[in-house]
Amino acid sequence: MIKYSIILGNLGNTCDRFLSTGYKAPVPKAEMIRQAAAIPGVKGVELVGTWDVTRENMDEVGELLDKHGLSCVSIIPDHFSQKRWGKGAFTAKDPAIRAQALDETMAAAEMARKLKCPLINLWPGQDGYDYVFQSDFRQERRWTVEAVKAAAKAYPDIKFSLEYKPKEPRTHSTWARGADTLLVAKETGMPNVGVTIDTGHSLSGGENMAEAAVIISDFGRKLFHMHFNDNYRTWDDDMIVGSVHFVEFLELMFWLKEVGYDGWYSMDQYPYREDGQGALRGSVEFLMGLEAMLEGSAMGEIRALIAEGDAVKSAAWVRSKLFRKK
Amino acid sequence: MIKYSIILGNLGNTCDRFLSTGYKAPVPKAEMIRQAAAIPGVKGVELVGTWDVTRENMDEVGELLDKHGLSCVSIIPDHFSQKRWGKGAFTAKDPAIRAQALDETMAAAEMARKLKCPLINLWPGQDGYDYVFQSDFRQERRWTVEAVKAAAKAYPDIKFSLEYKPKEPRTHSTWARGADTLLVAKETGMPNVGVTIDTGHSLSGGENMAEAAVIISDFGRKLFHMHFNDNYRTWDDDMIVGSVHFVEFLELMFWLKEVGYDGWYSMDQYPYREDGQGALRGSVEFLMGLEAMLEGSAMGEIRALIAEGDAVKSAAWVRSKLFRKK
Amino acid sequence: MIKYSIILGNLGNTCDRFLSTGYKAPVPKAEMIRQAAAIPGVKGVELVGTWDVTRENMDEVGELLDKHGLSCVSIIPDHFSQKRWGKGAFTAKDPAIRAQALDETMAAAEMARKLKCPLINLWPGQDGYDYVFQSDFRQERRWTVEAVKAAAKAYPDIKFSLEYKPKEPRTHSTWARGADTLLVAKETGMPNVGVTIDTGHSLSGGENMAEAAVIISDFGRKLFHMHFNDNYRTWDDDMIVGSVHFVEFLELMFWLKEVGYDGWYSMDQYPYREDGQGALRGSVEFLMGLEAMLEGSAMGEIRALIAEGDAVKSAAWVRSKLFRKK
Amino acid sequence: MIKYSIILGNLGNTCDRFLSTGYKAPVPKAEMIRQAAAIPGVKGVELVGTWDVTRENMDEVGELLDKHGLSCVSIIPDHFSQKRWGKGAFTAKDPAIRAQALDETMAAAEMARKLKCPLINLWPGQDGYDYVFQSDFRQERRWTVEAVKAAAKAYPDIKFSLEYKPKEPRTHSTWARGADTLLVAKETGMPNVGVTIDTGHSLSGGENMAEAAVIISDFGRKLFHMHFNDNYRTWDDDMIVGSVHFVEFLELMFWLKEVGYDGWYSMDQYPYREDGQGALRGSVEFLMGLEAMLEGSAMGEIRALIAEGDAVKSAAWVRSKLFRKK
Repeated sequence: MIKYSIILGNLGNTCDRFLSTGYKAPVPKAEMIRQAAAIPGVKGVELVGTWDVTRENMDEVGELLDKHGLSCVSIIPDHFSQKRWGKGAFTAKDPAIRAQALDETMAAAEMARKLKCPLINLWPGQDGYDYVFQSDFRQERRWTVEAVKAAAKAYPDIKFSLEYKPKEPRTHSTWARGADTLLVAKETGMPNVGVTIDTGHSLSGGENMAEAAVIISDFGRKLFHMHFNDNYRTWDDDMIVGSVHFVEFLELMFWLKEVGYDGWYSMDQYPYREDGQGALRGSVEFLMGLEAMLEGSAMGEIRALIAEGDAVKSAAWVRSKLFRKK
Repeated sequence: MIKYSIILGNLGNTCDRFLSTGYKAPVPKAEMIRQAAAIPGVKGVELVGTWDVTRENMDEVGELLDKHGLSCVSIIPDHFSQKRWGKGAFTAKDPAIRAQALDETMAAAEMARKLKCPLINLWPGQDGYDYVFQSDFRQERRWTVEAVKAAAKAYPDIKFSLEYKPKEPRTHSTWARGADTLLVAKETGMPNVGVTIDTGHSLSGGENMAEAAVIISDFGRKLFHMHFNDNYRTWDDDMIVGSVHFVEFLELMFWLKEVGYDGWYSMDQYPYREDGQGALRGSVEFLMGLEAMLEGSAMGEIRALIAEGDAVKSAAWVRSKLFRKK
Repeated sequence: MIKYSIILGNLGNTCDRFLSTGYKAPVPKAEMIRQAAAIPGVKGVELVGTWDVTRENMDEVGELLDKHGLSCVSIIPDHFSQKRWGKGAFTAKDPAIRAQALDETMAAAEMARKLKCPLINLWPGQDGYDYVFQSDFRQERRWTVEAVKAAAKAYPDIKFSLEYKPKEPRTHSTWARGADTLLVAKETGMPNVGVTIDTGHSLSGGENMAEAAVIISDFGRKLFHMHFNDNYRTWDDDMIVGSVHFVEFLELMFWLKEVGYDGWYSMDQYPYREDGQGALRGSVEFLMGLEAMLEGSAMGEIRALIAEGDAVKSAAWVRSKLFRKK
Repeated sequence: MIKYSIILGNLGNTCDRFLSTGYKAPVPKAEMIRQAAAIPGVKGVELVGTWDVTRENMDEVGELLDKHGLSCVSIIPDHFSQKRWGKGAFTAKDPAIRAQALDETMAAAEMARKLKCPLINLWPGQDGYDYVFQSDFRQERRWTVEAVKAAAKAYPDIKFSLEYKPKEPRTHSTWARGADTLLVAKETGMPNVGVTIDTGHSLSGGENMAEAAVIISDFGRKLFHMHFNDNYRTWDDDMIVGSVHFVEFLELMFWLKEVGYDGWYSMDQYPYREDGQGALRGSVEFLMGLEAMLEGSAMGEIRALIAEGDAVKSAAWVRSKLFRKK
């Protein structure tokens, strides 16, 4: 029922600021696609513009995906890994850079059409600020509204989903949390603009993931896309889903079902020192396990617990799932 | 220029869960009002419904305030300190309690009219949840929209300002952060519904206070009221303003001026072990100090720094204020 | 095998700073003892000095416990709920208060002897500071060393276990985290001085609970006592164990076994709005569930996983427990 | 009086996991040394082994430093930026890697002798763990004790200072906070082993920086070295000192003086998007400003405030410095 996908690059090499050449060896694209297709349950991939897909290799990538039975779930324009975006993409003080950020978005939408990909996931990681008295909060937010609106108007058949994150690579992101990003999405006035929840960004932003999903769904049917990973709440550790949190993910899966979310459940991790395919497979297995827990009478039971609101009973129900068939 | 006020009860006894009888002795109301008036710069007070002001003592309180030249800046209905609110006020699962929560709001609005008080500050602290599978996020948020809308329609001459806080006394509040509370305020569709920023709630919610003020102001002119206190970012310590943070408060004061905020700057502290009047006076003195720093050419200089966005220069400017006239 | 106990007062009324009269009704002591004994698995209770047990009612309490087959596991001297401790107990600047704090400790030890209770759990919650330039960090820490040493010398047959907590009711506690409290315990030079881990204090202090247990055990065999509760990591929410965290508690239970911890597993919660007995029972059931997960071949399997250090395999093993017998 | 230094590489290019080629252009070593010497007040530099200094270029680097009147304050062996350290250096499960980690330390000590550098700063950033059931907490900590002890015995004329950090690049570091790292240092039994406080690591670890300095100084005279930078408390943002925090740095500077710290005050930043020299100069200027605030009668005044412990007075004193000579 649930459609699982992964971000292709998660299968490749990963670096950080201390080990910039990466913890592992590079993996060829064809091999990554092969590995993705081999993860039980995975039917789609997300591609990063310029890293994974360009105008030049677009057809080749499309054929590889077809060959392995994978859909292109989303394209993520690269607004973060080039020097020119270092001081912002949509919010750069330099208008030429802002124009390029929009061009990059348009180019991704064009490729999406070609690849029959329904959604552009916008994560302009360099948009934000680091220091006091450095950002014009009003102006910069408005610039993001305008750029997104322009792209959404140009490509009404494509969904544009805004991915928020509290910080990193800036100390403060422009789109930092679910509700403020929903405000941006609504401000565009476009039906094809919505919000992506990355579970790790939600956790490190101090949100309850399930509540964020409900707010974004319920105040405007704007929950367009989901990225999954886990962390220790203070930072975007991008770990195997379920390696830290269990009950909050169960609650999230319940509410995604409850609000009728019908998008992809996409893995977005950074397996620095782990086998990439194994790390992604583990995440999908975890979510499938939760899916199974919510089958049968479970949805109705949870609804009844919520209606009563007795924490002792709710915790007992969770234990009944956790320790079942002892 | 800036209008300073305090929450009257800050001058009284304060308790916590470990020392429930309080760290200090109770202070009579008349004495608290006298002390408030004696703080240089303070021209108004906020009153908590039932604690400070009731239908019965309303006239007497009004006369005392007049006598000391104090305005009633806001009334805060008591939605938090009675057993009946223990499982929520506007979001209580029991409809009778929800009705009472609205009644309490209406009663406060009625008193506000009598006391020429322009604003009801709503902080329904017990609204929220503690455990997984305990809250119907959708329903409960909608209940708050409906209740606030009903009150705002009944008293169109009164402003209703929604005060958010990430947690405490619940592990999760319904109105948790600025942007989600702005969504609630907008959802009511009422021009006399807005948002209160409590600086301590903003800090402990992971927000940049100045940015929260801009978002709430700029996405709908909804910044109605300000509560000031300080903390160590992880909890609502309700300390003397400026005892922990300096540069972020300077940035906040800049932006409040920049967006044309013209409401009260009200102190809201919990001086558990301190002399209450001294703690409040310290906060007002700190904010007056920042006010002075922003006089003359400062506003223009900061605008220029923001336009350039060079952190080295911005930090140098702050140092020039911090270490001036060595 | 594992010995479970509870803090008796957890079954009574609970208040916070906003609802100081409490969320529930008071429960008579005899009833609390009856309820404690009725929780499957619970064989002991902890008593708070003056709240639960005094020189006057000591014999009566002892008889009640005997009657219900409960051991007195620890006594917690009241260093926190009286006005005189408001500015500190062992670290009060007033020497008379410091002397009283030691007297209270000695009195608790005397009662412990009478009740055949092996351990005094010291949680001097008011010891610490709130503001910058308020605490003499050196002097105050030394005072705690001296007082604990004096008590430990006077009662060599009693264990004194120092319970740390990062904050609350002070913004900073003197004994804030495991390693700094171990330093204090070691500094006393007394073999009968050790450390209590409260799982909620450890989580909100940013520790990995299991690692804290290992450090305290391994750098001096000083892990004397365990308090269990759960929270959302930023504050001491004192919730039902397992209502938030699962895998970290499993790791903690593994390591407690591995280091040979043989003390009590004691529940320490604040069920503000919940049925107290139900909340405590839920915690014990959760820990018993984990205990069962670690039986049979599990310990050896985990040791092998740790020796290999492959996160993909470790996460898979946890899933095998979580989703077993699907 | 105070000796200021910088980490040389702070003047070069900086990258992160999203922009691995860096935000700026590389800067030649000779140019970095020239820039360091040109910062008013800076008299020393720290060098990273293999990045900045190797057996091969050692003499050349020494001459360059001499020419510019700079001391080599410390050498930081590279235990973090090479693939071989990816799963740990001193705590690697592979004994060959552990041996290499010690070799690297010895080699750095050898270079230190040649360069008349008194201190090796050990920051084995890859030591730690990411996932549950991945680390043998006991064994790995002991390995670090043994390795440090071996190096300290081999080079008794060199100080070895252990730099702690709560996380990054691992989700949990082996040396995570001040007190646990002090325990490691003491466990070696070597007088030439101590602890480095990096202010950003202390802040993001939830410590009060000043209190950490006092604990490390007072429980064994082990405060050997100081790294300065600033952040927003949740992450090691490595920003200009004073750009976020003011009063806590003032408290830290007071206590460093009070405990007689006589080591270097070294800047350790990551000016991703800023002019490196400007960012470092700003930090030194900030600390010099605090130094000036603590001259004259200030130390005595602060001692008196601490002895009294009245937060209202302490906060007033800070304001008198902040807003002086209005």
